[in-house]
Amino acid sequence: NSSVTNDFNLAAIYVSDAQYNRNVYFDTSPQAVRLYMLYNHWALKVLLYFFMLVNLSLAIFEDPAVYPLPIWATMLVEILCLLIFTIRVIHYAKVILRDKFWKDPKNICIIVILTLTLVDMIIYGALKAANYYGVRWSRVLRPLLLVNVTEGRQLRRAFRSIRNALPQIFYVFLLFMFSILIFALMALKLLGKRGLTNINGTPYFTSYLEIMFDLYVLVTTANSPDVMMPAYNANFFFAVFFIVYILINTYIFMSVFLAVVYNNYKKYLKEEVRQLVRAKRHKMVRAFGVLQEQREEGGEPVVTQASWNQLVRLVQPNLSNAHRELLWSVSDDKNQGAIGKVAFVQLADLLNIEIITIKSRPHPLQSLCPSLYQSAPSKLLCQLVQHRAFVMVYDLIILVNAVFIGLDEENPMIANSEWVFLALYILEILLKLYVFEPRVFFSKHSFWNCLNPHRQILDIVFILRVLRLIRVVDSIKRFRTIINTLIRIGPAILTFGQLIIVVYYIFAMVGMELFKGKVTFYEQSSTDPAKAYCGNPLLNGTDFAKLNYCKNNFNDVVSSFILLVELTVVNQWHDILYSGFATVTHISARIFFVLFHVIVVIVILNIFVAFVLEAFFVEYSVDKSDLQTSLERKIEELELAVAQEMMEDNLVNAMETIDNDLGGSQSAKPNLPSLMFKIASKRYRTVDALLQRIFEADLDPEDFAENDDPEATGNENFANPLFSHA
Amino acid sequence: NSSVTNDFNLAAIYVSDAQYNRNVYFDTSPQAVRLYMLYNHWALKVLLYFFMLVNLSLAIFEDPAVYPLPIWATMLVEILCLLIFTIRVIHYAKVILRDKFWKDPKNICIIVILTLTLVDMIIYGALKAANYYGVRWSRVLRPLLLVNVTEGRQLRRAFRSIRNALPQIFYVFLLFMFSILIFALMALKLLGKRGLTNINGTPYFTSYLEIMFDLYVLVTTANSPDVMMPAYNANFFFAVFFIVYILINTYIFMSVFLAVVYNNYKKYLKEEVRQLVRAKRHKMVRAFGVLQEQREEGGEPVVTQASWNQLVRLVQPNLSNAHRELLWSVSDDKNQGAIGKVAFVQLADLLNIEIITIKSRPHPLQSLCPSLYQSAPSKLLCQLVQHRAFVMVYDLIILVNAVFIGLDEENPMIANSEWVFLALYILEILLKLYVFEPRVFFSKHSFWNCLNPHRQILDIVFILRVLRLIRVVDSIKRFRTIINTLIRIGPAILTFGQLIIVVYYIFAMVGMELFKGKVTFYEQSSTDPAKAYCGNPLLNGTDFAKLNYCKNNFNDVVSSFILLVELTVVNQWHDILYSGFATVTHISARIFFVLFHVIVVIVILNIFVAFVLEAFFVEYSVDKSDLQTSLERKIEELELAVAQEMMEDNLVNAMETIDNDLGGSQSAKPNLPSLMFKIASKRYRTVDALLQRIFEADLDPEDFAENDDPEATGNENFANPLFSHA
Repeated sequence: NSSVTNDFNLAAIYVSDAQYNRNVYFDTSPQAVRLYMLYNHWALKVLLYFFMLVNLSLAIFEDPAVYPLPIWATMLVEILCLLIFTIRVIHYAKVILRDKFWKDPKNICIIVILTLTLVDMIIYGALKAANYYGVRWSRVLRPLLLVNVTEGRQLRRAFRSIRNALPQIFYVFLLFMFSILIFALMALKLLGKRGLTNINGTPYFTSYLEIMFDLYVLVTTANSPDVMMPAYNANFFFAVFFIVYILINTYIFMSVFLAVVYNNYKKYLKEEVRQLVRAKRHKMVRAFGVLQEQREEGGEPVVTQASWNQLVRLVQPNLSNAHRELLWSVSDDKNQGAIGKVAFVQLADLLNIEIITIKSRPHPLQSLCPSLYQSAPSKLLCQLVQHRAFVMVYDLIILVNAVFIGLDEENPMIANSEWVFLALYILEILLKLYVFEPRVFFSKHSFWNCLNPHRQILDIVFILRVLRLIRVVDSIKRFRTIINTLIRIGPAILTFGQLIIVVYYIFAMVGMELFKGKVTFYEQSSTDPAKAYCGNPLLNGTDFAKLNYCKNNFNDVVSSFILLVELTVVNQWHDILYSGFATVTHISARIFFVLFHVIVVIVILNIFVAFVLEAFFVEYSVDKSDLQTSLERKIEELELAVAQEMMEDNLVNAMETIDNDLGGSQSAKPNLPSLMFKIASKRYRTVDALLQRIFEADLDPEDFAENDDPEATGNENFANPLFSHA
Repeated sequence: NSSVTNDFNLAAIYVSDAQYNRNVYFDTSPQAVRLYMLYNHWALKVLLYFFMLVNLSLAIFEDPAVYPLPIWATMLVEILCLLIFTIRVIHYAKVILRDKFWKDPKNICIIVILTLTLVDMIIYGALKAANYYGVRWSRVLRPLLLVNVTEGRQLRRAFRSIRNALPQIFYVFLLFMFSILIFALMALKLLGKRGLTNINGTPYFTSYLEIMFDLYVLVTTANSPDVMMPAYNANFFFAVFFIVYILINTYIFMSVFLAVVYNNYKKYLKEEVRQLVRAKRHKMVRAFGVLQEQREEGGEPVVTQASWNQLVRLVQPNLSNAHRELLWSVSDDKNQGAIGKVAFVQLADLLNIEIITIKSRPHPLQSLCPSLYQSAPSKLLCQLVQHRAFVMVYDLIILVNAVFIGLDEENPMIANSEWVFLALYILEILLKLYVFEPRVFFSKHSFWNCLNPHRQILDIVFILRVLRLIRVVDSIKRFRTIINTLIRIGPAILTFGQLIIVVYYIFAMVGMELFKGKVTFYEQSSTDPAKAYCGNPLLNGTDFAKLNYCKNNFNDVVSSFILLVELTVVNQWHDILYSGFATVTHISARIFFVLFHVIVVIVILNIFVAFVLEAFFVEYSVDKSDLQTSLERKIEELELAVAQEMMEDNLVNAMETIDNDLGGSQSAKPNLPSLMFKIASKRYRTVDALLQRIFEADLDPEDFAENDDPEATGNENFANPLFSHA
């Protein structure tokens, strides 16, 4: 009946929310629950992110454009995007309680952004229609949508950790600026009146503001040692001043920034993860509350296997029966047909563990001509190809090939050797096709199969093949911890990538408005005399033009992004500034660049470094404590685990396919069960997952206290960063 | 009698060894004990370090010299130094047990260094006498003496922590090099055959070795974005290659280096500090064993106050009676006239706490004409000058002066204002002289009194005055933690300074042999045409000459050190390399520079950053736990503590004098005891001291188990780094 169905839907949502760490205070009415299930449907999310991407990509087609499109076209697409976003917000409003909706700053943010964008579009459209000059200022708001959609949890977390670190960073920054001020004063007194000159003949260290800026740039080391040379040439004693300055400001203060960011990051990250763990557990308790039954009078409430099965089928419909049974046998340890609260709460984590189900499939040749395929030479060949040495021989071949490529290619012997290597690679493919079932082979080797005799493509294929060398390195134990951590950092880099894109996008939009068209890039083949000064006479004879930096400009969104990456790397940014954008506009253009430096290099990059450091320390500490799950133990108990020597737990194997089939190799070892399980490599657990596991171990398994929701309680530390700043 | 004297000497040595964390297995015979006391005499240590400094400074006078001296003169001085070092080693050999002496690698190191130096001097002298070319190769060994003398404990610890981190750094380095190799291969394939050119017209990315080097330099960001521009100008898509490269190698790998260094640093530092704490306690137990008496039959052994007093007088003869009595009253809490083992063990720490004894002295004017000095207006003036507002007003004046200096000095109004400020400063001095007792005043203001109307010196005085602004910043609470940590880092920077000097000295010696005289610096006024290419035609038209880098050379030890600092800062090092030293010598000169980069930037600077990070985290964690000592509590109990408002615990006060007198201010508050104690500011505790305190808190106070000596046991982790490497 419908009430039971609704109960199951509700429980399934709680489990799924726990599984993906969603913290949504949805309405528990049957209709809202169904709407919420729809809201979480993957297709809708993909659609949302697709339109988000479209919305952001509009910058490529809007003035200043990489590929110009008429205004009406981009406007139309943008209105479509806005419509989609509005529908999504309305959908969300229907799902959660009304007062919760209006209390949640992220919803208000989205509504404000959408309204402002619409207003801006109308104004801009009207101005353009009347042929006036207009600025699409609302474009800077676009990336903020990424932060404020319900799915942007990770990104919001990153922003929160930045905001939490800000006050402390600010105090260090004040001290740092104070130190620069003092040093600038000293420099002015020491060097200003000595009549020294820079290389280009301008007076050296005479203006207080210039000195401050020069010293700020020196902190980034970008103008070292040039800024020191005139003073040093006059007297070597002045070098001491600069050395002390670098020691204090470049080394000590920059380390202090890192220390402050790292300390805050650690503190808040751990607090947030702790709260996430509690919230997850609490949701599971709610799901249990919905499904629980009293088996006997006065007994503990339980969930029966039938309800549990129905629930899991709802939560993850594509789970195989075997997999589900495995999970149940882990939960129902004593085979009682029902589980209590403590066992039930594990479900969300159990579902999160990726398990590879391994099925055996015969090779098609085996069915076609079994006698030939099963003959002794054929079997020997199969064993040969599957042998470790086969892989090693081919790794060696790639290595030799790599060396050959590094050598002089003019030598005909070496040029021809390419064809030998190509033949060897084709041989490898044929041999593997013979041994492995085709589906297995293609899932493993999709990259390498697009061989083409065309030289250019061969190069790219080669580059991809060289990446296989990583497998050689990965098999050396010493490198394992390092590579494990690097892989674990992967998912977080995606979050940082979004973070960087948000910041870059805003700076790119502002930069384009400020600097578009000031610098022009001429193709190599161009003979225009303006090429020598990037099309701007003001740049004639400057370092910017001399160093051929014309393509470092804000003329379109792609160039802007690349320029911002260069500014992040910091080196030569004073050249881009001084002789570039400050020359063609105004000296105050520096503010833009210094602001970018403070935000991206001092704050965001340090958070990134802090993250990498923490990932390493977690990795080092986790190595010691054993975090093997009950599931792993169960699989071992049931003897369903894949023998280690059959499937090396190494990088490339696991990278190539999750639904790993052993294919034809089965034929060699017929006494194995036809279905086996394997936990997807532990190395793909993220740092967050490891932290969660650590905090779960800390938490009393019987502790089901109500908890604070990190996102919706209005707790000061965890409120929406954008809203409370606005 | 002599046996008792000997007992006290022995106990005093144990206490003093514990106090300064010395780990010397000295012979306990009376004669050896006396010799050991002599060995630890401060004058001998100062003498040793003085000759160490002389020995190192010889590089200034030896060829290539800053101030050339004849060979016989430097040789004579060096022989004198060697003689002193030899005497010191012989002295040490007489003090410690013979087998311990030969088991200790640092002694063998010293003997080997001294022998090699002597051999080298003889060979060099003979070669020079016969007019042959000779190389003073033993000069690279000189700084190693700093590491291997008994007093170089901190430095040895730093080297050990580097050595312990080396294996792990090495594995990351291999991966890192592997990554560079792969990227270089990809770059060769992607860009090598496109016929691109650098700005100077040379082909771009065609030689594998050149690409590898360029990419290595890119990791340091020194050649960004120049190395990318030719490819980026050809097609913006190639920028993606460089961005991925920078992300992986510059950001991730460099963070991984820091993580590995930091992790090891933390692990081994804590282990060493823990062992130091145990060793210290064990030495105190031995001292107790020497002095203990059995007061009653079957009772616990104790040390009487008389013995204790004699011991403390031996250990620290310049301790005032009042101070000693204070320490005794802290140890003998229950006033029993004798203390047990647990209380006795504290002594080393108690002696390490700096206590300021405050005496009151009347102002000379008070004795000269008391009626005038004690009159109401005079008293008001005194109160005024001692008031907080007086300091604040003068801080404000300095601030205004600072602003004026930053402004345009051509303006006559501003130039004349200097004289107003000068008058104000003189007024301040006069007022303070009136209020404070002269000795107090001069100990506080020795810096500021050398006022001189000469403009140049006035500037320097002003700069020193500006430093007083730090006091303003320091009084703001928010900045306290940061400034505290920065001050705590101070002593460690001295150790790092020594470490850096050891490494720089070795590189400077080698660099001078390799590159001396290749590049010449011409004074600004010189009209020699060779000035344009630094006196070396090979440099004609290179960036090195264009950027006016001629003074960046290895022509003497001072220039070498400054050049090495520039290389540490990393920026432009490829310019120094490429167009500088590689051009004038050979392309393999790069090996020298890359080696320097790996050792100094990747290893030593990361250890420095790790140290700063750890100092901050210790500071943050110590803030919470209360580490007030029993001594502080005792002083408070006895009501001998200086009232807080009388003596601000702030930076500048405490910096100026340790033996702080309150001088004439006493007259205003006559009801205070004439002698008071104050713990010297907690902010000067070093990070090591804080760590020791933390570990002491961890250790059971009754736990006196035998421990391992970190330096002399031959424990693998703690053996001498230089010896086991040699």
